[in-house]
Amino acid sequence: MNNPPTERTTVRRKPSRAHYSAARITEIVDAALIAHVAFNDAGSVHSIPVVCWRLGGALYIHGARNSRMTAALLAGECALSIALVDGLVLARSAFHHSMNYRSVVVYGHFVAVDDEPEQLAAYAALVDHVSPGRSALVRAPDRAELAGTRLLRLSLDEAAAKIRDWGVEDAEADLAWPVWAGVLPLRTLAGEALAESDCGPFPAPAVPAFLRSADD
Amino acid sequence: MNNPPTERTTVRRKPSRAHYSAARITEIVDAALIAHVAFNDAGSVHSIPVVCWRLGGALYIHGARNSRMTAALLAGECALSIALVDGLVLARSAFHHSMNYRSVVVYGHFVAVDDEPEQLAAYAALVDHVSPGRSALVRAPDRAELAGTRLLRLSLDEAAAKIRDWGVEDAEADLAWPVWAGVLPLRTLAGEALAESDCGPFPAPAVPAFLRSADD
Repeated sequence: MNNPPTERTTVRRKPSRAHYSAARITEIVDAALIAHVAFNDAGSVHSIPVVCWRLGGALYIHGARNSRMTAALLAGECALSIALVDGLVLARSAFHHSMNYRSVVVYGHFVAVDDEPEQLAAYAALVDHVSPGRSALVRAPDRAELAGTRLLRLSLDEAAAKIRDWGVEDAEADLAWPVWAGVLPLRTLAGEALAESDCGPFPAPAVPAFLRSADD
Repeated sequence: MNNPPTERTTVRRKPSRAHYSAARITEIVDAALIAHVAFNDAGSVHSIPVVCWRLGGALYIHGARNSRMTAALLAGECALSIALVDGLVLARSAFHHSMNYRSVVVYGHFVAVDDEPEQLAAYAALVDHVSPGRSALVRAPDRAELAGTRLLRLSLDEAAAKIRDWGVEDAEADLAWPVWAGVLPLRTLAGEALAESDCGPFPAPAVPAFLRSADD
């Protein structure tokens, strides 16, 4: 399925890196922990990093019920971006250095999720996003916790991905320059779990695939 | 040195996580590869991920000279955010799950850097940011490359950091809940360098400290 690009999501710089399929956008959102939300409030533009996760065709964020950010997001349009860096592209010329990355930009208007079943499903999805299967193990949110938290949903309908995933692109004239050139791959990986002092006897938590190395 | 917080940089949510010292802000910017820039253009707010690096008291980004983003950034104010995720905080209650992170938010107005010595120094700093010492080894930018690229500088004067770097904070009543609780540390690390086919004989590139594991 493709989201036809809009005026705002059409990638103009390096359009060969653009992807508009829902599958590509979903893959990138599902490998992200943080999105950066841009919005206007009190005469300024703001950029705030927030925890994000997906359920169905929408991205969710949450915040305190009385926060400036959640109020501003409900009042107007926003843009949101996600970027995952996959490698440093080290060329022979300074100019052709680059990065491999997967990014998504979304435009739209967050809506408040006040329906309790959707809230519970979304928070379960968040817990399972950081540790698969964990939502069934933890103490679920109670009514007071749900009431104090503002859950916001943003449709992924107006979104585009941009991906660079290849090697060095030096100019022909620079190929003989005497320096190492290539790609230094980057991965964000989970290290050894640090248990709370009383948590020895329980099984360690599951680590999501996007934070595991291939040989784990 | 402290940057006194402004109306915009005062952290209201969880103010105990706020840091306004230039040293803390600098450390976080220096461990980042990507910033997300929020700006207004053509009736919309935008959030675009960009490569960022620091030199002195300013953060730099670059883009094509004729791009919409660079033109809009020169025309008005922006906000910029950086977030580094350091761990997943897995609590006994869904509600107390959290993340450890280091983030920076900057407000200001990008200025164009048209002075050639500053351009060369800034691009050398970018190459050295991704691989220390590399700027002396690669082919430096020529006049045509400098002319085709727009270098932008943003002062770090109006900036704040937010850091969470501790363990689980469950409520007393949940401490006996039978589930593993603790922190899953996350690190972004460089993997094995993938050389261009003709790059066998050269020494492999230096990896910045912020992308190396402690035992490298």
